[in-house]
Amino acid sequence: MFNAQPIGFIHSSYRDPADIPKGLGAKHEAVGEIELLAEFAPGLADIEGFSHLYVIWEFDRAVGFDLSVRPPTDKSRAHGLFSTHAPRRPNPIGLTVVELLGRDGARLRVAGLDMLDATPVLDIKPYLSSIPEQKLRRGWLAEAEKAGKAGKRE
Amino acid sequence: MFNAQPIGFIHSSYRDPADIPKGLGAKHEAVGEIELLAEFAPGLADIEGFSHLYVIWEFDRAVGFDLSVRPPTDKSRAHGLFSTHAPRRPNPIGLTVVELLGRDGARLRVAGLDMLDATPVLDIKPYLSSIPEQKLRRGWLAEAEKAGKAGKRE
Repeated sequence: MFNAQPIGFIHSSYRDPADIPKGLGAKHEAVGEIELLAEFAPGLADIEGFSHLYVIWEFDRAVGFDLSVRPPTDKSRAHGLFSTHAPRRPNPIGLTVVELLGRDGARLRVAGLDMLDATPVLDIKPYLSSIPEQKLRRGWLAEAEKAGKAGKRE
Repeated sequence: MFNAQPIGFIHSSYRDPADIPKGLGAKHEAVGEIELLAEFAPGLADIEGFSHLYVIWEFDRAVGFDLSVRPPTDKSRAHGLFSTHAPRRPNPIGLTVVELLGRDGARLRVAGLDMLDATPVLDIKPYLSSIPEQKLRRGWLAEAEKAGKAGKRE
């Protein structure tokens, strides 16, 4: 148990959850900034060498949680919360992989944001390795994508 | 700001930080379990379809933090904390990608654990996509690996 405190904040163009691309095929290519509080900036040393970062952040505008959700990628069926990235969770923690474009002191310019402007950042870690695509199974999401494509063909 | 509360706990064979493989070439293949508290078990519906999961957890035995660290993968130089996965962080949050082997009610059998036994789990999310290896740059860690290999050749 600990009290989660912001180490910085997101600067993005998303002011409202409705602005954020969602659903099947949604692409997160938004460019913006992660600005760390000045006291934490020394922790960014050497980060420029990494192409991608994990950003761990707080869903600070989510209230409460449901263990069963209908995500925008598959409104036809409910799924267990932990099988989704839905915002309303027991611990309101978000996780996003961003591409690091550059750094200016305490500010990281990044691509791939899917957070609202002013979202509190809890942690940043380097993205070190990928699971090979051929080893990856993506459960209900792969099924929903298949159904979506089949639907489009009709 | 929120109070991070466990949704469950890790069952692993690691009783002491010294038991956990560290440093260059360390492989995390340990098999163990994530046991959710009974009240959160319904949130696991449909999770069996995913081959890999993100586990977000608490470094509950870490105290304080340093913004400059010498990780076991490169003891020769200090690196900024956010360029590492070191345990002592402003928010003591760990992130591990595990392979899901099976589920029995509130228990997930997984491979790839690198947490101590009884570590509190904060969140579980499906691993949905990988950054292609050819797009990944791994900064100081790639350099340290290169130097390590060159050292071995001598």
